[in-house]
Amino acid sequence: MVKVGVAGYGVIGQRLADGVALQGDMELVGVADVAPTLAVRALKEKGMPYKLFCAVPEKKKDLEEAGIPVSGSLKDLVDAVDVMLDATTGGVGIKNKELYKKMRKKAIFQGGEKNDVADVFFHGYANYEKGLGKDYLKLTSCNTTGLIRAVDCIDRAVGVEKVAITIIRRVADPGDIHRGHVDLLKVDPVPNHQCVDLMLIMPHIDATGFLVHTPVTHGHIINLIVTPKKKFNCKEALEEFEKHPRMRVVSIDEGFTSNTAFFRYARDLGNPRGDMYEIGIWRECMGMSKNDIMFAINIPQEAVVIPETVDGIRAVMEMQTERLEAVGKTNEYLGMGKWLKKSR
Amino acid sequence: MVKVGVAGYGVIGQRLADGVALQGDMELVGVADVAPTLAVRALKEKGMPYKLFCAVPEKKKDLEEAGIPVSGSLKDLVDAVDVMLDATTGGVGIKNKELYKKMRKKAIFQGGEKNDVADVFFHGYANYEKGLGKDYLKLTSCNTTGLIRAVDCIDRAVGVEKVAITIIRRVADPGDIHRGHVDLLKVDPVPNHQCVDLMLIMPHIDATGFLVHTPVTHGHIINLIVTPKKKFNCKEALEEFEKHPRMRVVSIDEGFTSNTAFFRYARDLGNPRGDMYEIGIWRECMGMSKNDIMFAINIPQEAVVIPETVDGIRAVMEMQTERLEAVGKTNEYLGMGKWLKKSR
Amino acid sequence: MVKVGVAGYGVIGQRLADGVALQGDMELVGVADVAPTLAVRALKEKGMPYKLFCAVPEKKKDLEEAGIPVSGSLKDLVDAVDVMLDATTGGVGIKNKELYKKMRKKAIFQGGEKNDVADVFFHGYANYEKGLGKDYLKLTSCNTTGLIRAVDCIDRAVGVEKVAITIIRRVADPGDIHRGHVDLLKVDPVPNHQCVDLMLIMPHIDATGFLVHTPVTHGHIINLIVTPKKKFNCKEALEEFEKHPRMRVVSIDEGFTSNTAFFRYARDLGNPRGDMYEIGIWRECMGMSKNDIMFAINIPQEAVVIPETVDGIRAVMEMQTERLEAVGKTNEYLGMGKWLKKSR
Amino acid sequence: MVKVGVAGYGVIGQRLADGVALQGDMELVGVADVAPTLAVRALKEKGMPYKLFCAVPEKKKDLEEAGIPVSGSLKDLVDAVDVMLDATTGGVGIKNKELYKKMRKKAIFQGGEKNDVADVFFHGYANYEKGLGKDYLKLTSCNTTGLIRAVDCIDRAVGVEKVAITIIRRVADPGDIHRGHVDLLKVDPVPNHQCVDLMLIMPHIDATGFLVHTPVTHGHIINLIVTPKKKFNCKEALEEFEKHPRMRVVSIDEGFTSNTAFFRYARDLGNPRGDMYEIGIWRECMGMSKNDIMFAINIPQEAVVIPETVDGIRAVMEMQTERLEAVGKTNEYLGMGKWLKKSR
Repeated sequence: MVKVGVAGYGVIGQRLADGVALQGDMELVGVADVAPTLAVRALKEKGMPYKLFCAVPEKKKDLEEAGIPVSGSLKDLVDAVDVMLDATTGGVGIKNKELYKKMRKKAIFQGGEKNDVADVFFHGYANYEKGLGKDYLKLTSCNTTGLIRAVDCIDRAVGVEKVAITIIRRVADPGDIHRGHVDLLKVDPVPNHQCVDLMLIMPHIDATGFLVHTPVTHGHIINLIVTPKKKFNCKEALEEFEKHPRMRVVSIDEGFTSNTAFFRYARDLGNPRGDMYEIGIWRECMGMSKNDIMFAINIPQEAVVIPETVDGIRAVMEMQTERLEAVGKTNEYLGMGKWLKKSR
Repeated sequence: MVKVGVAGYGVIGQRLADGVALQGDMELVGVADVAPTLAVRALKEKGMPYKLFCAVPEKKKDLEEAGIPVSGSLKDLVDAVDVMLDATTGGVGIKNKELYKKMRKKAIFQGGEKNDVADVFFHGYANYEKGLGKDYLKLTSCNTTGLIRAVDCIDRAVGVEKVAITIIRRVADPGDIHRGHVDLLKVDPVPNHQCVDLMLIMPHIDATGFLVHTPVTHGHIINLIVTPKKKFNCKEALEEFEKHPRMRVVSIDEGFTSNTAFFRYARDLGNPRGDMYEIGIWRECMGMSKNDIMFAINIPQEAVVIPETVDGIRAVMEMQTERLEAVGKTNEYLGMGKWLKKSR
Repeated sequence: MVKVGVAGYGVIGQRLADGVALQGDMELVGVADVAPTLAVRALKEKGMPYKLFCAVPEKKKDLEEAGIPVSGSLKDLVDAVDVMLDATTGGVGIKNKELYKKMRKKAIFQGGEKNDVADVFFHGYANYEKGLGKDYLKLTSCNTTGLIRAVDCIDRAVGVEKVAITIIRRVADPGDIHRGHVDLLKVDPVPNHQCVDLMLIMPHIDATGFLVHTPVTHGHIINLIVTPKKKFNCKEALEEFEKHPRMRVVSIDEGFTSNTAFFRYARDLGNPRGDMYEIGIWRECMGMSKNDIMFAINIPQEAVVIPETVDGIRAVMEMQTERLEAVGKTNEYLGMGKWLKKSR
Repeated sequence: MVKVGVAGYGVIGQRLADGVALQGDMELVGVADVAPTLAVRALKEKGMPYKLFCAVPEKKKDLEEAGIPVSGSLKDLVDAVDVMLDATTGGVGIKNKELYKKMRKKAIFQGGEKNDVADVFFHGYANYEKGLGKDYLKLTSCNTTGLIRAVDCIDRAVGVEKVAITIIRRVADPGDIHRGHVDLLKVDPVPNHQCVDLMLIMPHIDATGFLVHTPVTHGHIINLIVTPKKKFNCKEALEEFEKHPRMRVVSIDEGFTSNTAFFRYARDLGNPRGDMYEIGIWRECMGMSKNDIMFAINIPQEAVVIPETVDGIRAVMEMQTERLEAVGKTNEYLGMGKWLKKSR
C-alpha cells in the first residue's frame, strides 16, 4: 500500500483525498490545512473520516477553537507518507517543496504552481512514462487536463497536426466570493496558456487558442478544431471517444443541454459533491470544417484532474510501468470503467 | 409499513423519493414519470434503485427506446400504494387527483397546484393536527415552508403579531434552461403570495412582503422583521432557533458567506446532490429594530419541502397523532436531529 | 429624400428610426407599434421626435390611455413612405408583407423572419449589388452581420477558403425579462445558423461553427479561424481591419477587457443608448494556427445591423448603384468614417 | 460663476463633470486623472470637451503616449478653482486633502472616504443647512443617498420613528472586471453601514438593515419598512413621492419590471450613458404592515449622487442659503423638474 498525504484541503485537495481513499492499493494517511474552513468543518461534521494535520503550527489553536481535532503537523504527515499531493494555493507548493525535499519524499503539484517546481509536467494518458520514478511532478491545470485527454485520444488514433481552440471558461467555483464578474465576457490574449502547456506535453502538435471568461461556475467548455494527420471524420472520432473511460459522450437530445447539465446529472447519480471525473462530448456538437474535425468538450473543473493526479502517484511510485495498466487501475478504483460498460 | 408512490420524478420528486426511502416506517413503491429525462437516465445508470412507472401510456415507448425499464403504469403505481406524493408540474396534479379519487387513495400535492386541490394547506410544524386523517393535503411552496418554520418557531415561543418580509429569490434551479434572466432584479407586486399563504396557515398573524427575483440558483434568502407579542430579543430568538432540528444556525465568520455557501457545505458533507433540508440562519445577520426582531434565513429550494411533505404522510395516515412525535420521526430518519446533537 | 417608415419600435426598431433620421438623404416619416411599451413611453417623454402610428387599430385606445399621441394607422404610415423597415417580432413581418405588397411598397425585414419573406438575403458590404432595385430584402441577424463584415473584409483582400467559428452569444438584451438563464452555458448543435447564413451570402466559402449561449447582455463574441486562399498573416489582416469603417481595432491594454468594455466606452462617448455600430477586434486576440488566421470579434447586438439595413434602403431605392459609394454614404451620416479618421 | 474641478475621472467623476457642466451658475474648469483609462480615451475621442489635468506628474507621459492632451497638473487645476469635487478611489481623497488645504480650497469628497475627511457628512435634501460655508463635505454613498431621499421625504411629511431596510445591492458596475461574483447572494452583517450613516445624518430616527450583494450591475433595490410618527398610508406616501423632483414613481404595469428597466428607459430617453438621477418607486410595491409603510426604491448607483454633490457646491459656496432654493436650482439645471411637470 502506497501511503499518500494531501496538503491543502480546498476544492482540489478534498477531491484528491477522496480519490486516493478509493484506490485499493493506496492509503490516505491524512490531509493538511491551516484554518477551520467550511471544508474542514464539514470533515469534522462527517466524523473525521480523514486525519487532519495542521500545516502552520501557530494556526493550530484556530482549528482547536473551532472544535476540530488535529493529528499533528504537516511535518508529521510528510514523515508518514511515501508521496505528497500538494493542492495548496499557487505559490505555496514551491515553499512546501523544501520540506518534501528535506524529508526525501516525492510530491505531485497542481497546475497553479510554476512549471519549474517539478521534474516533469505530467498527464496520465499523454506522457505517463515520463513520470516513472521521478521525484516531482506537476499536473496540468483543469482545462489543459481535459483538453489533452481529447487531443491525445485522436493523436493516438490518427495523429494530430494542429489544433485551434476556443476556451469558454467558468470564472469561479460555486460559492467562491473572491473571484467572479457580472454580465461580461472577459477576453485573454492569444495564445492562452493551455495551448502552450499542451505543446510542452505534446511538442509535435501546433496549438493555439482564444479564451473567454464567462460568469458561470459549473464547468468550462472548449471548442476544438483539430487537423488530423490522416483522413478522419466525426463518426470515427466519436468511436474513439466512446471507447475512452475518461470521456462521456452524450446528446443534447437526452437533456445534456449545457455545462451545468453534467453537474445536474452527476448530482442525480448520487456522485459525492455532484462531481464528475469525465470530460463530456456532445454528439450534436461535432462537425467537419473541410478536413478538420470540430468538436466541443465539457470540463468539470473541480474534479477533472483527480484521475490524472492519481496516475501520477502510480508513476512516481512505479506501481505500474505500463501506461494503460496504470490509468486502468485508477479508472477501476474511481468507478470510471464501470460507467462505460454499463451503457453498452 | 406505509406504502408511498411519487408522481413526477423531477427536482422535487427525486428528493421526495429519496426522503421516503430513508423512513424506517415507510416503503417507497416506485416513482412515475413520462419521459427519459436526465433524472430518469440517472436512475437507470444507478441500477434502478426505485421502480419506474410510466405516467402516460403512449410515452412508454420513449422510455423503453432509451433503455429504461418500465414497471407499469401510473395506475399500477397508485393501486399499490397507500398515499401518493404528487410532484408533477403545476396543473397536472389536479388532473391526477381524478385518478387518486377514483382509486380511493390519499394524495399530497406540492405548492405549484392551486389551493383547492386539497382539503388542507399543510405545514408539518405549524398545523400538523389539521392534516390528521385527511385525504388530500397541499404543501406550502419552498419559500413559504422555510418562512413558516422560522415564524412558527418564534410564534410558539412568545407569539407573533406581525411580520414584514423581503424575499430575495433564486430565479431558476441549477441547470434549468427554461427559466432565468440576466443582470436584472425583477420585482413582484406587494404582497407576495408567500405572505398570503402564511396567513392562510397562521391566520392570527399579519404578514406582508416584497419579492425580488435574482439571477442565482443555490437558495432563496428571506429577511424577516417580526413583531413579537412579548419582549423578545435576538439572543432569545437565537436560542429558539438553535434548538430547532430543521434550522441551522451558522456564522459568516465560519465561512457561510452566501446562500451558495450552504450548498457548498452540503456538497462537502457528502449529502446526496449537495442537498440540505434545513433552513439557515446567520448569527451576524440579526438585529433589533426597536422591539422588532430582524433576521435572515436561507432556503435551499430544492430540498426544503421534503421533511414537511414526509410529515404530511404521517398526518394523512395517522402514523403519529402528536405533532412533535411526528416531526421527530421524520427528522430522525432524515438524520436531522443527529446534526443538532453532534454540534453540541 | 427617400421616405422611410419603421414597423415595430422595439430594440431594433428604435435604433433603425434613429439611424434613418441621421441620413441626410432620407426622411423618417414615422414609426409603428401596438402598445405603450417603455420605448414608446420614452418617445413620449422626449416630446415625440418621431410620429407614432398604431399598427393594430383596436389597440389605439391603449396608447391613448397612456397619453401617447397617435398619428394614424400602420396603413397610413405605409401609404406615406417609399420603403418600410420591418422590425416587428419574428413571424409578424410575413403578415405585414401582405399590406406592403398590396400598397406596392418596398420593405426590408430583419433576421427574425424566415428567408422566403424576401427576394434577397442582404448584407451591405458583401452583396450590395444583389439588392439593387429589389422589392424585398431580408437582413442577416446581428451575429451574422458582424461575422460577414469580418469575413468579407479578408475575402476581398486575399480570398477565403473556409472559416470555422465559435460563437459566444449573449443570451438576452439588457432588461429583457422574457429570456435568459443563470449559471449555465447552453450549447447549440453544429453547425449554427450563422454559418449556414454566411454560406447563403458567400457560397464560395465553407463555413461551420459551434455556438454557446452565455448569461450576459452586452455583446456577442465570435472567435474565427479563417483559412485564406493566399499566404496572409495577422499583421496584414489587422491592416485590413483598421481601414474598415465598420470595425474598431482596440487593445485589451487600452482597457477593452471584455464585451462590456465596448458598451462602457460607447456610453462614455455619449453615444445614444451607449450603442456602437462597429464590431470590435482585439489586437491581442489574434494568432496564427499554421496558415490559418485566428481572431475574435465583438458584436454589439442591439445596433450592429443598423448600418447594413440603411444600406438596404440605398439598394432597393437605387440611391447609389456602387457598393462602396452606398456604404460610404451610410457611414458618413452615421459618423462612422469620422471615428476612423480621428484616431489617426 | 463658481469654478469647479473634478479629481478622478472614473464612474462618478465623469458624471460629476457632466452634472457641473450643466449648471448655469458654475464653470467646470477641468478634470484630473492619472492614466489613459477608457473614460479618458473617450474624452479624447469626443474632442476634449473638458480639459484634462494630470494628477501624478510622473504619469503624464503615459497620457501623452496615448495621444491625450494634458492641460497641466492637479495643482494647476486646484489653483484655478473655487471648489474641488474629489471622486478618486477611496483613500486617495484624504491625501489630496493636504493639497486642497494648502491651497486654501474647499472640497467635497465622495462616500468612499472615511467620515473624518470632512467637517460635515452631507445630503442636499436632508441637511443642506449644515453644509453652508463649510470647507469640506463628505457625501453619502449611492445607496445612502437614495435611501435618505426617500426617508427624508416621509420624515418631513409626518415624521419617522424608525426604519428597517433590506438592501439588495448590485455587486459591480457595468464592465467592472475587478469586482463581482457568480451565482451567489453574499450577505453582510447587520446593521449595514447605510443605516448607520442614515442615523448620523438623521439622528432622531432609529434605523437598521440587512444587505445582500447580488450579481447584477444596473441598480440597487432597497425595501424599506418605515414606522411613521403619525397615521400615514400608502396613498399619502405616494402623493409625497410624486411631488419629489428626485423620485420617479412608476408602475410594473408600464414596463418597469426590474432595476434594469430604469436603465433601459434612461437609454431610450437618450440620457447620456443611459443614466438616471432619480430614484424609482414602484406603485405596485407598496403595502402596509399594520401602521408601518413598506415600499421599495431603485437606486441608479452610477448617477444618483450627482445632484446631492452639486447641492454640496451650492452649500459650501453659499450660492443659496435656503435648502429648497438650492436643490431647486440643481434640479432645474439637471432637467429634473422638467420631467415631473411633463408627466402631469
